[in-house]
This record gives sequence, C-alpha cells and structure tokens, in this order.
Amino acid sequence: MAARHTTAGADEQHSAHPDLAAPVTGALHFVTATFFTLPSNSDLGLRDQICEMVSSAITTEALSPDNRLPSCRELADQLGVSRNTVFEAYNRLIDLGLLVSRDRSGYFVNPIAMSLSQTPTAQKTAEDPVTPAASTPSPVHFDALDLIPVENPLNWTSYPYPFIYNQIDPNLFPVDSWRECTRLALGRTQMPAWRDDSVESDSTQLTQQLRQRLLSSRGIYADEDQILITLGAQNALFIIGTMFSHKNTSIAIEDPGFFGARNAFQLTGNKLVGVPIDAEGIVPGAIPPECQLVFTTPGHQFPTMVTMSEARRKELLDAADTNDFIIIEDDYEAEMNYFNSRSQSLRSLDTNDRVIYVGSLSKTISPGIRLGFMVAHRDIIQQARVVRGVMMRHPPTIVQEVVALFFRLGHYDSHLRNIERRYKKRWLAMQEAITRHLGMLEQSRTIGGTSFWLTGKEGFDATELGERVRERGVLIDVGENFYLNVNRRSFRLGFAFVPIKKLEEGIRIIAEEVKKLY
Amino acid sequence: MAARHTTAGADEQHSAHPDLAAPVTGALHFVTATFFTLPSNSDLGLRDQICEMVSSAITTEALSPDNRLPSCRELADQLGVSRNTVFEAYNRLIDLGLLVSRDRSGYFVNPIAMSLSQTPTAQKTAEDPVTPAASTPSPVHFDALDLIPVENPLNWTSYPYPFIYNQIDPNLFPVDSWRECTRLALGRTQMPAWRDDSVESDSTQLTQQLRQRLLSSRGIYADEDQILITLGAQNALFIIGTMFSHKNTSIAIEDPGFFGARNAFQLTGNKLVGVPIDAEGIVPGAIPPECQLVFTTPGHQFPTMVTMSEARRKELLDAADTNDFIIIEDDYEAEMNYFNSRSQSLRSLDTNDRVIYVGSLSKTISPGIRLGFMVAHRDIIQQARVVRGVMMRHPPTIVQEVVALFFRLGHYDSHLRNIERRYKKRWLAMQEAITRHLGMLEQSRTIGGTSFWLTGKEGFDATELGERVRERGVLIDVGENFYLNVNRRSFRLGFAFVPIKKLEEGIRIIAEEVKKLY
Repeated sequence: MAARHTTAGADEQHSAHPDLAAPVTGALHFVTATFFTLPSNSDLGLRDQICEMVSSAITTEALSPDNRLPSCRELADQLGVSRNTVFEAYNRLIDLGLLVSRDRSGYFVNPIAMSLSQTPTAQKTAEDPVTPAASTPSPVHFDALDLIPVENPLNWTSYPYPFIYNQIDPNLFPVDSWRECTRLALGRTQMPAWRDDSVESDSTQLTQQLRQRLLSSRGIYADEDQILITLGAQNALFIIGTMFSHKNTSIAIEDPGFFGARNAFQLTGNKLVGVPIDAEGIVPGAIPPECQLVFTTPGHQFPTMVTMSEARRKELLDAADTNDFIIIEDDYEAEMNYFNSRSQSLRSLDTNDRVIYVGSLSKTISPGIRLGFMVAHRDIIQQARVVRGVMMRHPPTIVQEVVALFFRLGHYDSHLRNIERRYKKRWLAMQEAITRHLGMLEQSRTIGGTSFWLTGKEGFDATELGERVRERGVLIDVGENFYLNVNRRSFRLGFAFVPIKKLEEGIRIIAEEVKKLY
Repeated sequence: MAARHTTAGADEQHSAHPDLAAPVTGALHFVTATFFTLPSNSDLGLRDQICEMVSSAITTEALSPDNRLPSCRELADQLGVSRNTVFEAYNRLIDLGLLVSRDRSGYFVNPIAMSLSQTPTAQKTAEDPVTPAASTPSPVHFDALDLIPVENPLNWTSYPYPFIYNQIDPNLFPVDSWRECTRLALGRTQMPAWRDDSVESDSTQLTQQLRQRLLSSRGIYADEDQILITLGAQNALFIIGTMFSHKNTSIAIEDPGFFGARNAFQLTGNKLVGVPIDAEGIVPGAIPPECQLVFTTPGHQFPTMVTMSEARRKELLDAADTNDFIIIEDDYEAEMNYFNSRSQSLRSLDTNDRVIYVGSLSKTISPGIRLGFMVAHRDIIQQARVVRGVMMRHPPTIVQEVVALFFRLGHYDSHLRNIERRYKKRWLAMQEAITRHLGMLEQSRTIGGTSFWLTGKEGFDATELGERVRERGVLIDVGENFYLNVNRRSFRLGFAFVPIKKLEEGIRIIAEEVKKLY
C-alpha cells in the first residue's frame, strides 16, 4: 500500500469520512496482503458487490478486528469505483454491525462481528482439516433404486427444438406481477405469518383462493379441512404413497402412465399393477380386485392425452364403490382445453368421497414455485397433513402468501388467459404440422394440453428416433419411459417450450428421420 | 342505481375517464344487483382491494362480459373512496386484460378474460354440484400411524410463558434485510433461475455460501456434489430414511432423542433401536451390531443438551469403522454456543466418509423459509437427490436465491451475531432463575442451545406438571415425548420465545407447581 498522502482534495477535507480524518502515521494496521478485487461478472450492483466482498473477507477471516480496512479513497482507487460507492457500502456494513468506524483511525471489523462461539485461530491451527480423498468409494453400498430416469438433458435449453415437457416458456412468466405480489406480501405491517413454523395450518388466503378460483371451476366444493397444500403435485403423490404403503396393498396405475406417480408409489414401498388404457381412458374392468388404490389422469391421460369419456367416468366411479377402492385423480393441465370442451372432474361426480383430487400450479404459474394441492375426505387430509409434517413440515409460508396475492389481485386469471391463448395457437400449429408431415404415424385424439402422442407401426423404434433427431437439435420424449413393459413404438412431443416459428421445422426434421426408419 | 347526472364537475369534464364521456342513456347495461362493498379488515391498500373485489366478481361470474361496471364516480361513492383510487384500480385491471374500457360506454369485463375452456352457464345448470355430506365417514379406514404427536397448541402465542421449542422470537427476524434480498433476487435482468424446474441442480450461489460460511466454520470441506439442499433438516432425515428403508436394516437412535427423526425413520419403514445416552453423549458400546445407521446430535444432544465429549466422538467414529455403520450427525443449533466452546463436528473428524451431516437454517434465519442441507459422500448425495426429486422435485428456487443473497451481503452474519447475543442473555437469565428456583431438580450440563433439560426425583411426573402449569399460562415440553419407553421424570424449557423479562416469573410458577408434586 502506498503511504498516505498528507494532502487531500478539498472535497475530502470537509467530509465526515473517518479515514480522511485519520492522522498520518507510520504504524498503520492495514494489512497490505488484503488486496480487494471485484468479481468480473457479478449480478449485483457495485455497492452490494463491495458489501459481499468485505463480508466474505470477514467470514473467511481474511480480515480480523485488528485490521484497519482501506480508506474509502484507497478502496475506490483499488476497485476503480467512486468513493461515494465505497462510502455507502461501508455505512451499510456499519448498519449491519459488521464494521465500526473509529474517529480519526478509519474503518475496522467490528469485534463483536466475530462469532461468540468461534476461536478461529486456535481452532484453525489445532489440526489439519480432514478432507477425504475425492475418489474414495462410499463405505456403504447402495442398490440402485428401481426408478425411471426421466430427466431432460441438463443443457436442454441449448437445443433449437426441445419438444420436451414440464417446462414453461420463460417468456410467459409474469415477472412484474410476481414482484408486485412479493412486495405486498413482505410489506405488511402486521406480524407476517410466513416467519412461523406452521405445520398444522396452511395459508388461509391461499386455501380460499384455490376454492374460489380453481376448485369451483372444476365443480369441486371443499371445506378448508378437505384441502392440503403440497410442494407440487409430485409431493402430493409421494404423501399418498407413504400413507397407503402402510396398508400393504397394490396400486393400479395407467399403462402407459405418469412415471412420476410410478416412482412415488414405488419408492414409498407400494406394489404396482399396470392397467391398459383405450380411446376412452383407463379400462375399469381390467383393474385387479385386490387394488385398493387406482391412479388415473382423466382430463388428459398422461402421456396419450386421451380425455376420459363421460360414460367411462361413471363406470370407474361405480367400480370404486363395488370393489371398494380409492381413486387418485391427477387433474394436471386441467386448464389447458382449447375448444370449450373441458370435462368435469371425477371428484365433482363423486358422491361417495372416493376420489383424492390432486392439482398443481406448476403448469399455470411456474414449476419453480413448487406448489400443488390435494382435496379429499377430511380424514384422508388429516392423515396426509401428519405425513407431510414428518416429511418436510410444510411448504414455505412466504411462497404460499405470494401466490395467494397473485390470485387475489387477478394476476392468475390474467396470466391463465394469456397462456391459454398462446398455447392454443401453438397447439393448432402443431396439429397442422403433424397432419402435414407425420401422417404415417397414428396420433391419439386430444382436445387440449401441451403435448401430442404419436405411435408408429409395428416394429417402429421411437427410442432410436430420439437418438437420431437429437443429433439434429431436436429433443423428443421417447415412449418407453411411460410403459411398465417394453414398448418402443410411441413418443411424445411437448410444445410449450419450442418457439412457435420453429414448430413446423422441428416436426419436419422428425418426419425425415421417421421416414428413414419406416 | 341513481340516474346519471347531466352535469359533471370541471375536473371530470377534462378527464379521460371513459365513464365520464359516456352519454346519458336510459338503457344502461349496468346490473344494479352487483353492489360492491370492501372487506372490513383487509391487509391490502384500497386500490388493491378494489382489484381483488372486481377480479373475484369476474371469477365467480357475478360479473359477465355483458355487464357494464359502475363508473369510477359511482363506485367511489358506493365504496366511500376517492374516484382516483377507483380509476387506478380499473386501469390496473385493464393492464391485466381483465377489463376493457369502451369509448363513451364505460368499463366492461373483457370477453377474453373468460376462460377459453369454460362454458360456465351451461356447466352450472347441467346438474347440481355434488357435495358429500360433511359428516360422511371416510370409505377407506386408516390405521392411526404410530407417530408421536409433538405439536405445540395452535394458540401457543396467547400463553404468557410459552417455554416451547422450535420457534424463533418473531422480533428477531430481519424483515428489512429479507425484503432487500427478495427485491434483489427478483430484480435481476438475466433470466431468473427460479422460474425453472431444476431437480438436478441446486442454487450454485447458495451452495457456495453454505460452503464458505456455514460448513467451513464447522471444519467441513465439501465439494458441490457432496451437498444437497433440502426443505429443512426434517426433510433431510425423511430422505435418508427413505434411502435406507430399502436396505431393510435397523436405525439406532438416541433415547431420549429427537422425535422428528424417530417419526421420519419410522414413517419411511425403518426399524428403530434406542441407544442410551450419558453425560458424554450417546454410548457407542450400546449400539446393537446389526445397525447400519446411527442417528446422533453431538453438538447439543436433543433433548438433554449434553455436548458429546472429544473422546466419545473418536470412540463413535472408531465404532463406525469397526462395525461398518453410517452416522447421521444432526448439527442443529451448532451456532448457539456462548462460551467460545464450540465443539468440532463429527464430519470434520471423519476420515472415512462415514458421516452424513445434516444442517438447518430454521434456527438461525426462520423455520418458515424451510431450508436445510445435507453433506455426505457424493454417492450418497447423488442417491439422495434422486429420492428428493421423487418426493418433491426440489425446494422452491426463489427461496434458495433469496437466502443466497442474505448470506452474500452479510445479513446472515449480522443476524447471527445479533441472535447469539440475545440468546446468550436469555440463557444466562434462565440459568440464574433455574439455580434460584428449581434447585430440587437435576439439570443436565449444557454450554449452549436454546433450551434446558430438567429431571425430577424418582416418581416425579413431568406430564402432570405440564398440565398444572399450563393452567397458569406456562407451556413446557414434557419429557415423555422424547423417550421410546415410558419415562415421565424430565421436561424441557425452551426460552427462545419467552420475553426475557418474563423468564424468571415463568420459572417461579413452575417451581411452585414442582413443590406441590414433591
């Protein structure tokens, strides 16, 4: 460090900066080894970058209470920022109690900023840190769990034609609305509910909004104790799987079906039985009598997108009464119907409280917020709440409150109409492109949702197709992941993430590769 | 509704309000039945209350596209608010696409605000909604799960002396810091990571902060793939329980011990074996050889608050090598040590990668944010990530990002020092009051944490004590919930939530009731 100048600029002489009032001395405590640099690509403003840098230096003990920090001017010069920015950062750190300013001496680390419980130097030198070799094999060996690997490639965003599923177009996320609701949720003067540990009760506001806006549109009337907020629909399925695993029964699932449900039921220790589906949905006559639980996706069968017919719905509910089973209705993408043709939910037709209804906000708001819910008989919900408590206590309260406001102020309705319109356009573009280019494949009938299901002739291998198109920048969901037994004839095309202008080109590439396999 | 006035105020004549430009007409579409009132005790500002009211009326179809809304003036009169507030609310709803303003006619519900997929009137009249009678018993009967009911009474805040645990003093929560970090997290210009579904990877920033600030202070050096973010420590235990239940082994737990761990391991289908603890912590010699997993709380034994001795730590790690078991170290309240006496973590002494370390931010930031983490061999973490994915995919990304900023900008360090100082004061006040009033009870030795553990003589019944003091406004944690077998001699006093001025008075009341039982 250069010796302090004996003359300072006029603006400094009248400044209240303690470092400017410091006497010139030959015994400065400032350790020259602490040379600060700012990160090259930070997501923070300059003041906050300085706060981060100094705070980090205190934590890692690069700075100790014996060290004087660089003066505002020195640090400003080091970093190439304005002195005022450094001054603001130092004051912020003083407010936080991490720094103190001593008259005529400068800025120092606040001695009480060091943890009461830490005696760092003693501990540090006590012994070398234990660092097990990175290559050490685990001393306990795990059997690979029998789960279906269903993740998209980590770098899927770099593909020009990602016909994948379970992702929303990030351009559709209403960032401004979300910000406004967050600001409101955090700005309350009363004691915010979101600070507390609240296993026993969910956000009253959110529960009320779900009843008023989502459930009523599905014909479902539920009291507050018939609803449980979960960390997404996947979490609801895991909770249900945990509850039923103690009954040592079998769960019937659609085949092909939703691997997320399969994984959840399997990992919680349940036995699974596959039930075929036809053009009207799951086939009730094929449900083995020993099943006490039947998982189904009547709105849009996952993954074939078939909507369960009215007759089939009644048949299924009758079978539940006759054979004494419970139905799990996963009503995912309930909102995504484009032809005034929304089917009624099973739960709304259920006079005997045999349906556990599972819903999600991942498709309509964002999968990143992780909110879903289940509706069922209050005895089931009560037990599910206990299970949820042991699993994770509850979904973060702050997220529940923000989403409640998102509903209350009309943002959800506005956003939903917006994505419905956009997805309808894409759906129509997809249907047109598929008709034009992929006529050689069988397409399952669908009236909504955000994907299409296509099946090739006997001997067609969609898994091979997946590998071929991937090399041309196209990602598809190969069908074998959805089947309990080997079946490679089908694949799924999700269109939520592919820009509308690229849809047809993507389909054309797929068609070229299909032809080579035909 | 009153007929429209033919004269308007000067300010209105020059206004752009469409309702002011509307011609006087005898055929208004406005339906007088829609009489709006604001809620009596809303948490929102007036403009937002109006937005909520109108949005709700659209959702419930009290308003349809055929209805003209009241003019700004009419609604302002109805509600007793300023016309400008109504004008702002209407414009907000126009921005959201829920209303349209038609020149010279007024404000209407936007026809495209109605869902594409809803044909409400047809659906509504199609049949009566199904509402199962509220008293219907569940058609499926559940065996009560064998879990320990450990929740505090819902109205615990109304007790003057709530010596309960797992709650932070809400006055300590740094609301302003949290707001600032949230604002920053939401204000980013780059595509925010928190919108996406991200099972495979946690927040890089948060992982880095945990390594730099929390783990290094516990002597733990971990790579990114040795860390998993969980929805609180409870969630980490449930994930571990799920992983090990497939190995069909027994888990050794401390007795008395943490019921949250007991519940998690039991509900995931593991067999449990209790291991006694003494003044140095868990007794390794008493761990049955068939156990492949041992759960322990070495920092402050839960609930006795005993800190595991150095010798005992080495003995336990040696036993793990010899008998080939894995240790789960729940390092809760690691930060709460008040005498420069923080013990080293087991994981930091573990040369053979036999320790799964579990940490939490519930005690230091807030239980409502639900964030915890686990550190272990990368093979274990990889498997835990798969299990977490099936259980709930991942903790909400937005919460991870806000907490990362909370660390980066120094708020966490500042806040931690603050609560350490406050809790130390309370700890000392508690120790003094216990020494003064509760000398007839045995107190287990402790050097930190936020609770005390007290044991009466043979025949003393802490459960009865709990009932008696509760009638006098005092809540205590009765000890029997912590034991695998019946043992009612002990109880725990958590002091995080009782105001410091009331601590001694609360202890005095407890002492009075203890004397009656002695």
